[in-house]
Amino acid sequence: MQPGGTFKIMELTSLLAVFLFLPKASGDNVLIWPVEGSHWINLRPIIDRLIERGHNVTVPVPMGTLFINYTKPSPIKFIVFEASFTSHDIESIIQNFVDFWMYKYSHSSHWEIYQHIAAMKTNVTNWNRHVCDGILKNSKLMHNLEQSNFKVLLSDPVSYCGDLVALKLGIPFIYTLRFSLASAMERLCGQLPAPPSYVPAVMSELSEKMNFTERTKNVLYLLMYDLMSIWFWNAWDLYYSEVLGEPTTFCETMGKADIWLIRTYWDFDYPRPFLPNFVFVGGIHCRPAKSLPQEMEEFVQSSGEHGIVVFTLGSMIKNLTAERADVIAAALGQIPQKVLWRYAGEKPKTLAPNTKLYDWLPQNDLLGHPKTRAFITHGGTNGIYEAIYHAVPLIGIPIFADQPDNMSHMKEKGMAVVLNFNTMTTLDLVDALNTVINDPRYKENAIRLSSIQHDQPMTPLDTAVFWIEFVMRHKGAKHLRPASHSLTWYQYHSLDVIAFLCFCLAVALYIPIKCCMYCFRRCRSKLKRKGKKD
Amino acid sequence: MQPGGTFKIMELTSLLAVFLFLPKASGDNVLIWPVEGSHWINLRPIIDRLIERGHNVTVPVPMGTLFINYTKPSPIKFIVFEASFTSHDIESIIQNFVDFWMYKYSHSSHWEIYQHIAAMKTNVTNWNRHVCDGILKNSKLMHNLEQSNFKVLLSDPVSYCGDLVALKLGIPFIYTLRFSLASAMERLCGQLPAPPSYVPAVMSELSEKMNFTERTKNVLYLLMYDLMSIWFWNAWDLYYSEVLGEPTTFCETMGKADIWLIRTYWDFDYPRPFLPNFVFVGGIHCRPAKSLPQEMEEFVQSSGEHGIVVFTLGSMIKNLTAERADVIAAALGQIPQKVLWRYAGEKPKTLAPNTKLYDWLPQNDLLGHPKTRAFITHGGTNGIYEAIYHAVPLIGIPIFADQPDNMSHMKEKGMAVVLNFNTMTTLDLVDALNTVINDPRYKENAIRLSSIQHDQPMTPLDTAVFWIEFVMRHKGAKHLRPASHSLTWYQYHSLDVIAFLCFCLAVALYIPIKCCMYCFRRCRSKLKRKGKKD
Repeated sequence: MQPGGTFKIMELTSLLAVFLFLPKASGDNVLIWPVEGSHWINLRPIIDRLIERGHNVTVPVPMGTLFINYTKPSPIKFIVFEASFTSHDIESIIQNFVDFWMYKYSHSSHWEIYQHIAAMKTNVTNWNRHVCDGILKNSKLMHNLEQSNFKVLLSDPVSYCGDLVALKLGIPFIYTLRFSLASAMERLCGQLPAPPSYVPAVMSELSEKMNFTERTKNVLYLLMYDLMSIWFWNAWDLYYSEVLGEPTTFCETMGKADIWLIRTYWDFDYPRPFLPNFVFVGGIHCRPAKSLPQEMEEFVQSSGEHGIVVFTLGSMIKNLTAERADVIAAALGQIPQKVLWRYAGEKPKTLAPNTKLYDWLPQNDLLGHPKTRAFITHGGTNGIYEAIYHAVPLIGIPIFADQPDNMSHMKEKGMAVVLNFNTMTTLDLVDALNTVINDPRYKENAIRLSSIQHDQPMTPLDTAVFWIEFVMRHKGAKHLRPASHSLTWYQYHSLDVIAFLCFCLAVALYIPIKCCMYCFRRCRSKLKRKGKKD
Repeated sequence: MQPGGTFKIMELTSLLAVFLFLPKASGDNVLIWPVEGSHWINLRPIIDRLIERGHNVTVPVPMGTLFINYTKPSPIKFIVFEASFTSHDIESIIQNFVDFWMYKYSHSSHWEIYQHIAAMKTNVTNWNRHVCDGILKNSKLMHNLEQSNFKVLLSDPVSYCGDLVALKLGIPFIYTLRFSLASAMERLCGQLPAPPSYVPAVMSELSEKMNFTERTKNVLYLLMYDLMSIWFWNAWDLYYSEVLGEPTTFCETMGKADIWLIRTYWDFDYPRPFLPNFVFVGGIHCRPAKSLPQEMEEFVQSSGEHGIVVFTLGSMIKNLTAERADVIAAALGQIPQKVLWRYAGEKPKTLAPNTKLYDWLPQNDLLGHPKTRAFITHGGTNGIYEAIYHAVPLIGIPIFADQPDNMSHMKEKGMAVVLNFNTMTTLDLVDALNTVINDPRYKENAIRLSSIQHDQPMTPLDTAVFWIEFVMRHKGAKHLRPASHSLTWYQYHSLDVIAFLCFCLAVALYIPIKCCMYCFRRCRSKLKRKGKKD
């Protein structure tokens, strides 16, 4: 199925259905927990749709925010509060992170990687703590929030304390997230089952089909990340207990979420067990393409039958080394397609006339353009979902965080070729481009995944909004929360029952065996005595 | 929220949405596997909606069917085939089953219960085998089906071989079921995870919150039913292998289903883990009430402010002993409500003027009537779902099969009082009726569960039809099928990995300990020698 016209009609009808047929929203007050980076970008479509449906959306924003533009006129009500960090602090944390993973990770020792992670932990914890204190210890702000009659709080748990504020205000809360480290939050706090035999840990780069070695690696990976997460969360247990005024843990508090909106779906992710309060809404931000700016449209049209290639390494990568930029530019010059490259660095020496550099690209509109043949990406989930939505094959140049794992999913699903950023040559990139553009299987798989993404009972955005409004209408969604939350880990795995049954079995076997042995000995000694007498 | 007007508007808009906004159906051919009893009643709403949406529905029917009326004009295309049993045979199997559970079970020994189950197994297997042979060994009929270009087969796995026919025809298949014995089919063949610590086995009458004894009972229950199911299925492995022409098992074949439509939802069932290809569509047959026949409406209206009680023990219970009927009728005479009792037996001596007997009742229309105060039921899932849909509190008099377990769910959810059919007195029934009618908590809980049932992204019927059409559009739903199907049981539970890691740990501990002990011995012997020299 060609995902062009049919899908556009479905979008339109879905949009009409939302306005005409979904239960009418009653203009409730929604509190959104602030978050930075692409996480804020992912919250925006939900916020916009909530506002469209007549709700009042409030976002408390720390003064030093980097990504939330609260100075422009907006239908969102921003409440600016003081927090002891500046946008420069956030920028330097991010830059530090990117630089390490881009240029240092591959030739660092385990000790250096550990040191980097420990430093990151301290930085992120401090940053988070400033946001938490900025709201929770600001009694005027808290009083203001209490008076605002919020019906629900929506939080991305990459930024902590949203759950705490919801509990202090006595309102239900919902998480929206792509993943936590090896899904430790979802598994350990949300009780999401994840058998390691066929559910690969996020960031492990493993697929759903694992041999013995890979399954062992997966178990070790999960163990390692669980220990790391518990170490990370331990630092918060006391803070959470103090705020709530009773002994609790970070993880126990997270477990009180009513709904977990997970930003993947079964086109990108491998099918796995989940719970009724986990809702999969991958591609929440995807939308039909809009027209391009005139100059860009002209450049795209000039590509003729060969079409275009879209290239971006995301908003966090601002620059490359001259050597890497030259290797890439030389490759782009060898294909018959026109290339639009989002690149803010110095113009590479090898840049060919078919390639144009841009400070910023309307990525979604370009991916939805009929002339687009391939997308070179760092492998962020947002870009991947836009490519799935518009059925565009991928060349992945993953750099850090979940990007290598994301790209391994798309490679496994037959929609991508993956390259190593540090070691790829010009020829590697040319080969990869020619493969995904000329081998029809990549386009076929992209169309297949795209049709899965489009053919759902409701669009991911409508699904997310439905469950947020459900929680508001019903003051929670307790009927979806499994009873496992009240079990200890050994009860959950039935280890006490197994131990008891093993003990019973042992006793049941031991007594008859002992009896038999006793009888056997008695008979033997009788026979011996008889033998001696004879 | 009172589920009256609002819900009716939602029904209407949902119906409009289906016609206006769901992807248009293209008139595909759907094959339905025949099944008897309430299972056929559960298939009908799906069949009717598929026909409404322009599909052509074909049902092969064995000549001796009891429940499928193929003689009346119908939009369904029935293909009648010969099978070596009569409707009388089916009737006697059912009557035998009902009589045992109703009157003999409570005072039978374990050996008698086992004998009954073994006899049932033989009867049901023979009956099933006749249906399978009637189609699979009828080459003309199979050729006819092959020529019919079916896009999907829909089967309730209580009747076997639907999967076999789908595989022989090379088309995808979908199951629709309420449950199998302790969910053994769903768990062992469909790979549905069910941690026994908080997922009570179906028919165990346990709730989601279990103490140590109950969790132990649950594990033993699952073990027992798994062994029983495997013994049951073993008889079919050879048949399945012969038909498919390759070594396979009954369970492996079931695992090839594209979608499992489970006829429960989280209002009736406890939240539990599930897989993306398991879709919960409980209440699929529920619909707004229609007007009652005039005579019945007049009787209902004559109840005044007290309202009415609806009473039926289902279509399988035709008669009661005179003693039980008198006990019940005497109780019904002591309440101020009017009672409509579906009862085909002899008129009880104690029948009071407020109670009217009927051969048949328009159950759904009565439950949806504003004057209905309570529903006395045997606890079949269909009746329970109609009561949830219309928010009517229940008095359960469960008799056999899943009925006691179903009623234990409703009792746990605060919407029902449960009585024992064989031991209840007149006073017990009067008390139960007064409790559910006069204690507002029962009605409140009924309204709460009803609002959960009504407040879903799509109605259960639309959801079921969406996924059937999805499978037709995409020739299956492989993207929803977990990779666990290719694992052995010990790989699935990572037992090989755990054994390997334990071995590594033992070696890792053993070598340093041995080294330490060796060094310690060397040092000690040196010291000793030195001591002797000194």
